Amino acid sequence: MSSAPRPYAPFERLSSTQLYHSRWCGLRRDMIRLPGGREQDYHVFEVDDAIVVVPLLPNGDVLLVWQYRYVHGRTHWEVPAGRIHVGEAPELAAHRELGEEVGHSTQRLERLPGFYPINGISPHYAHAFVAHDCELLPGGTAHEDSEQIEVHARPRAEVERMLRDGEIADGFSALALFYAFQRAPPR
Amino acid sequence: MSSAPRPYAPFERLSSTQLYHSRWCGLRRDMIRLPGGREQDYHVFEVDDAIVVVPLLPNGDVLLVWQYRYVHGRTHWEVPAGRIHVGEAPELAAHRELGEEVGHSTQRLERLPGFYPINGISPHYAHAFVAHDCELLPGGTAHEDSEQIEVHARPRAEVERMLRDGEIADGFSALALFYAFQRAPPR
Repeated sequence: MSSAPRPYAPFERLSSTQLYHSRWCGLRRDMIRLPGGREQDYHVFEVDDAIVVVPLLPNGDVLLVWQYRYVHGRTHWEVPAGRIHVGEAPELAAHRELGEEVGHSTQRLERLPGFYPINGISPHYAHAFVAHDCELLPGGTAHEDSEQIEVHARPRAEVERMLRDGEIADGFSALALFYAFQRAPPR
Repeated sequence: MSSAPRPYAPFERLSSTQLYHSRWCGLRRDMIRLPGGREQDYHVFEVDDAIVVVPLLPNGDVLLVWQYRYVHGRTHWEVPAGRIHVGEAPELAAHRELGEEVGHSTQRLERLPGFYPINGISPHYAHAFVAHDCELLPGGTAHEDSEQIEVHARPRAEVERMLRDGEIADGFSALALFYAFQRAPPR
């Protein structure tokens, strides 16, 4: 049984002002009319959709990365993620990031439920995947020089403990890991 | 055993340009120096930190809301969430949103692991909670006129099925529900 909510009628958009636009992101301010008739502005942050992928090794271990994030200055445990290039299918982006960030490939990429990470202020959407039976690429990783990343294989039970103890502070990674573990039975 | 990554040295910030600022959000473009010496710009989206709270009734049912989101025009299943007001403690914000969005109060608010929802581009942080044994407030809900919300109590097993089937498309809600179910044993 599905349980989809009965959709509300959309707010009427009276005008839209592009406050900023670049190849990285954009910001606009719309004037909208609320159901009660009142008008108000609404900011919308624009950024390309993204993928997140949970890499599993043939023995069930998980490939995690230590990743530095400039915005908060911390180095966190994450799984590979990144923006979808213009015109790129989400699956291709997942294969690409899997190769670039952890230097692995998969013959079996499975879709997980996707999600809107910040749907109060952006239509930004994340497509999530689990990559089964990952194999090491001969060429290894291909990190950009803005990426400070180190790859670590971890037993699934240890990653489940890290999730329980709140050690996965990146929302994309934590949610994709929950979905992946829900789908993939332990070895 | 904790497993914190060895932190990387932060990127050096050479300059910072505020592209936009309002009480709702801001956007800036920093020039940074990468470890290899190359300079590049980095956009940072600024928005107040948020809370998300999973309301549980004394019988174990979960209070969900149908919520319309202007940014993508869809009506989704969510749990209460919202921004922290200036100077407000995260716990107070959770109690406030619990009252406003679903018209309930709790004597037992438990912290769940928090998360960075989009840490590639924003330091925005979400504090997550589970509210046990929620009780109906005499006054009911207090929705703003920009909020199109309808409250529904659902059995925990049904919400677990919805998570499995990918019916919780809001990232805040899905992740907080996984953490809450992990902590709170079924009744």
